[in-house]
Amino acid sequence: MTLKNIFYAQSGGATAVINATACGLIQTARQHSDCIGKVYAGQHGIIGALTENLIDTSQESDAAIAGLYHTPASAFGSCRYKLKSFEEHQTEYRRLIEVFAAHKIGYFFYNGGNDSQDTTHKISQISQQLGYPLTCIGLPKTIDNDLPFTDSASGFGSTAKYTAVSILEASLDVACMAATSTKVFVLEVMGRHAGWIASAAGLAAEQEGDPPHIILFPEIPFEVGQFVGKVSEAIEKYGFCSIVVSEGLKTRDGKFLTSSELSDAFGHTQLGGVAPVVAHLIKRELGHRCHWAVSDYLQRSARHIASKTDVEQAYALGKAGIEFALAGKNNIMLTIQRLQSFPYRWEIGEVALEKVANVENKMPLDFLTPDGFHITPKCREYLLPLIQGEAYPPYKNGLPDYVALKKILTPKLL
Amino acid sequence: MTLKNIFYAQSGGATAVINATACGLIQTARQHSDCIGKVYAGQHGIIGALTENLIDTSQESDAAIAGLYHTPASAFGSCRYKLKSFEEHQTEYRRLIEVFAAHKIGYFFYNGGNDSQDTTHKISQISQQLGYPLTCIGLPKTIDNDLPFTDSASGFGSTAKYTAVSILEASLDVACMAATSTKVFVLEVMGRHAGWIASAAGLAAEQEGDPPHIILFPEIPFEVGQFVGKVSEAIEKYGFCSIVVSEGLKTRDGKFLTSSELSDAFGHTQLGGVAPVVAHLIKRELGHRCHWAVSDYLQRSARHIASKTDVEQAYALGKAGIEFALAGKNNIMLTIQRLQSFPYRWEIGEVALEKVANVENKMPLDFLTPDGFHITPKCREYLLPLIQGEAYPPYKNGLPDYVALKKILTPKLL
Repeated sequence: MTLKNIFYAQSGGATAVINATACGLIQTARQHSDCIGKVYAGQHGIIGALTENLIDTSQESDAAIAGLYHTPASAFGSCRYKLKSFEEHQTEYRRLIEVFAAHKIGYFFYNGGNDSQDTTHKISQISQQLGYPLTCIGLPKTIDNDLPFTDSASGFGSTAKYTAVSILEASLDVACMAATSTKVFVLEVMGRHAGWIASAAGLAAEQEGDPPHIILFPEIPFEVGQFVGKVSEAIEKYGFCSIVVSEGLKTRDGKFLTSSELSDAFGHTQLGGVAPVVAHLIKRELGHRCHWAVSDYLQRSARHIASKTDVEQAYALGKAGIEFALAGKNNIMLTIQRLQSFPYRWEIGEVALEKVANVENKMPLDFLTPDGFHITPKCREYLLPLIQGEAYPPYKNGLPDYVALKKILTPKLL
Repeated sequence: MTLKNIFYAQSGGATAVINATACGLIQTARQHSDCIGKVYAGQHGIIGALTENLIDTSQESDAAIAGLYHTPASAFGSCRYKLKSFEEHQTEYRRLIEVFAAHKIGYFFYNGGNDSQDTTHKISQISQQLGYPLTCIGLPKTIDNDLPFTDSASGFGSTAKYTAVSILEASLDVACMAATSTKVFVLEVMGRHAGWIASAAGLAAEQEGDPPHIILFPEIPFEVGQFVGKVSEAIEKYGFCSIVVSEGLKTRDGKFLTSSELSDAFGHTQLGGVAPVVAHLIKRELGHRCHWAVSDYLQRSARHIASKTDVEQAYALGKAGIEFALAGKNNIMLTIQRLQSFPYRWEIGEVALEKVANVENKMPLDFLTPDGFHITPKCREYLLPLIQGEAYPPYKNGLPDYVALKKILTPKLL
């Protein structure tokens, strides 16, 4: 009997730990070489399957695969590409199944966020319709943390840790200079639709009055007056004000602050970045000197300050992917199930893909304080376990020793 | 005989390691309690002396002082305040000496950049003129690395490491998505007048073609055409382009890019930030989607990724400050003397303050490649030793366990 091969693909925005999932999956598959064939990885995600560009991971050394554990971003390349419905785009799905059949692929693992889980679900359905036996398993990943049914999505914990550490450090900086210099610091973080990443900044404020003093969530419409009053209050009480703003901050009429009239008033319609808009508003309304930072890709690629918990969960997802597949599971997304918060205990669970597709894990409103400017103890209880532990990469010559794979493509057969 | 006390002050922008210098100074002073009295620290730098707000460090526990080793920013508060000349502002200098005399201060240590060394020199001169015996020693600190006579200024190595690690990680991110998404990433770093911090990003490019592909230095006038051509070339060759830009980037007529006509054309006169201007230019000229980040305070407070070499040098400067003072040295700035690059060997040296005041350590032109977009091997040889080693702070609950001092003021006597 010929062994069935695996197709694994990384999807959407990179994270600091998505390669740890690949590491767990490939290492575990190698341990089961009696019942699993090769692991092919899609070059640039699912596009690699459509174009028959399959990276043969068996050409990578054990050391290189082990190195994925501590290497950020998508080692095989990722993509933003959403399959349309079967009705709309039959040829694309048929092509996928043709490629899978040609390369004797019996297992499909898709490592991504909401769209990817939707795609995994669709491919599972198509394979059944076309009578092609395919085990389909989704592996949750997104720094946005908007996947349902899982305690968190892999990648979020590390972005959360980066954000909390960064605002803690920058706040010490602005605090020590505030008497004669800059009094306000604004850090912009990602999260177009949900304030999960912004909320993580709240972890730095361990006691009443600790910075950040203000968090601006996309869930709470931005009101200039209230905000400016809050900034004033913080400066009066603490001598400075430390602010974290989500890129998805909106005005009451539902427009992003970066593209609102408020923003236009500052001559800032085109360049993006909500932090400079907020900083300029403070300068105009209160006259205070502001500094601002935009962490952008730094926050999702910062493997050097990854959460150990997050890295371990990411690895466990890949490992369990193989184990669940061998146990005959199919058409599921793996999940992290929280058993206990303090100390944090968790295990890998599962949920049917049909339940996941396009459902969003929103911030519960009781995670935000009544004034909408900070997180509640309940939110802290949820978040704190996710940033526990450090998992430093090895260093060489003063820099992290990240691996680069050979990425040898298997010969095309079609 | 009453023992003479110490006045120590932190000045200017904070760094990740300035408190390590305070730690070295206070710990060493405590070891010499037979010949040195108390260490007073200025509340908010030299302003603490002028206002007679002296923090009595003897009230801090040994554990708290030890914690300064791994705590970023200025634990005693810093300031931006430059003393005027003696002729212009006699009362201010007389006041300083009065405060010093009242509190039996025999040693003045000023931990800062160019302006601070100038101030230290002036105070040394005034104390001589007024016949007040005062040992004046400058301790070099600035992430800008523009202090002369020292191999580097403490704080620079850690900012350099942060910058190189950050661009390495973010470049992996943009690289893995470039096939179907963002092709260009721009990171803005500090350095208003010199490209030292920007140059450190070059360390991430270990081999030809490695990112960052382009570094924009304040030393090299910005030319749209050349730059856009270079971006195109990188995308063609590598599929993506990773860029680091110094906030001090100027056009040929000497204007900062952020306040030039070029910037106006993008509707961006008021908000600051050169990264969005550069990103917008690429979008307009080449049509590529860009992401950009501004690291601002994060780059100078990131103690979590400090250079071990930098931390050790910062500590050694504080320790040597006491030792040099006890050896009768006066009116000097301590320096780091490089003995060898690989492996890096260094020792603490000294230079007369009169030689330091207001001299700038500029980037040598042979540190930049002929096209002005990258660093040369010579620059790499200089920079690489400065980012060697990691010096992680202890963690508690997933976050660095930075210390907060009690900062008890000694009773005023005037």
